Amino acid sequence: MGRWQPDAAGRLQQAALELYATRGYDATTVAEISERAGLTERTFFRHFADKREVLFRGSEELQRLIVDAVDAAPASARPIEAIAVGLQAASAMFDADRRPHSRKRQAVIDANPELQERELIKLASLAAALADALRRRGVRHLTAELTAQAGIAVFRVAFEHWLRGDSEQSFADLVRDAIAQLRAVVAG
Amino acid sequence: MGRWQPDAAGRLQQAALELYATRGYDATTVAEISERAGLTERTFFRHFADKREVLFRGSEELQRLIVDAVDAAPASARPIEAIAVGLQAASAMFDADRRPHSRKRQAVIDANPELQERELIKLASLAAALADALRRRGVRHLTAELTAQAGIAVFRVAFEHWLRGDSEQSFADLVRDAIAQLRAVVAG
Repeated sequence: MGRWQPDAAGRLQQAALELYATRGYDATTVAEISERAGLTERTFFRHFADKREVLFRGSEELQRLIVDAVDAAPASARPIEAIAVGLQAASAMFDADRRPHSRKRQAVIDANPELQERELIKLASLAAALADALRRRGVRHLTAELTAQAGIAVFRVAFEHWLRGDSEQSFADLVRDAIAQLRAVVAG
Repeated sequence: MGRWQPDAAGRLQQAALELYATRGYDATTVAEISERAGLTERTFFRHFADKREVLFRGSEELQRLIVDAVDAAPASARPIEAIAVGLQAASAMFDADRRPHSRKRQAVIDANPELQERELIKLASLAAALADALRRRGVRHLTAELTAQAGIAVFRVAFEHWLRGDSEQSFADLVRDAIAQLRAVVAG
C-alpha cells in the first residue's frame, strides 16, 4: 500500500486486482484478498457479494452518472443526442490517470469467461436503464431499445479506444467519434 | 406428445419448455424433463450440458447460418450490408409456424435472470463471430466491432418485432426495417 489509504472497498479492490493479475482470478481466494488489504473476510462480504463483484465496483455509479445525464439532456435533444450526452458524462470516471488501473482490470476480465459474463450483465443493465430513460423522454418502445443498444455499441467502442490510449482524446471525444463512425457504418 | 415424434433432443426441449412454462424453471428438474420426454437423464445429459442449455438448442445452428451468409456476401458489400445478408439468412429459422414456440420460450427466459444471462452470452458469442467474419472481409478491428454490435442491436429489435407478430412481415423484412430505423436513429 502507498501512503494514501483508500477506503475499505477501494483497498479490497486494489488488493483483488493485484492478486488476480499476478496469480490469476481462479487461484485467488477472498481470504487472500482480505488479508492483503489488511481487512477481514467479513469486511469483504460487507462490501461485495462475491469475488467477481469486486471488479465491478463503480458500475452502479457509472450507470447513475450516465442515466442522470440522459434525464438532464434538453427536451429538444433527439434520442441519440440524449444518449451521447449521457455517455459523455462518463468522462468523469474515465480520465487518463485511471487508465493503468482500467487496463489491468480489463485484462483480468478478458482472461476469464465468468468475469466476461458479469460484464455482459452490467452492460445489459446499462442498456435497459438507457432504454427506460429514453421512454421517460417519450421515445417509443422499440426505438428506445434500438437507440439504447446503439448507445451500448458506441460505449464499448469508445471504451476500447480509451483503454488503448493511442490518442490524447478524452472519453467524451471518443464517444462523439464512435457515434460519427456508427453513422458512417450504417449509412445507406 | 402428438403423433409426430421428434428426435430425442427435440422431445427433451419440448418437454422442458412445457414444464418451465407451467411449473416454472426453478421448480423443474432434469429428471422430470426426461420422464416427460420418455427418456432417461443420461440421454438428457448426452444432449445438453444443463437445464439452461435445453432452451438454447439451435443457437449454434443460428450462428453458423448467419456467419456463413456473411462470409458468402458479395465482396463488394459494405460491412453493414454483409451483416444484413447474414441476419436475413436467419429467416430460415424464424418462420411464422415457429412463433408460438418462440414466444413461450422467450416468456420463460424473460422470467428468469439465470436464463437471461445465458441469452446474453449467446448474443455476445454471435457478436464476436460477426466481428470475426467482418475482419475476414478485411474490415478494420474497431469498425468490425462497431458494425457487429450494431448488427446485434438490429437482430434484437427485429426478433422482438417478429415475436410480437403484429405484422405479416418476414424476419428478413424486419431486419431490413430495423437497419433503416437504426440509420434514422443515428442520423446527424
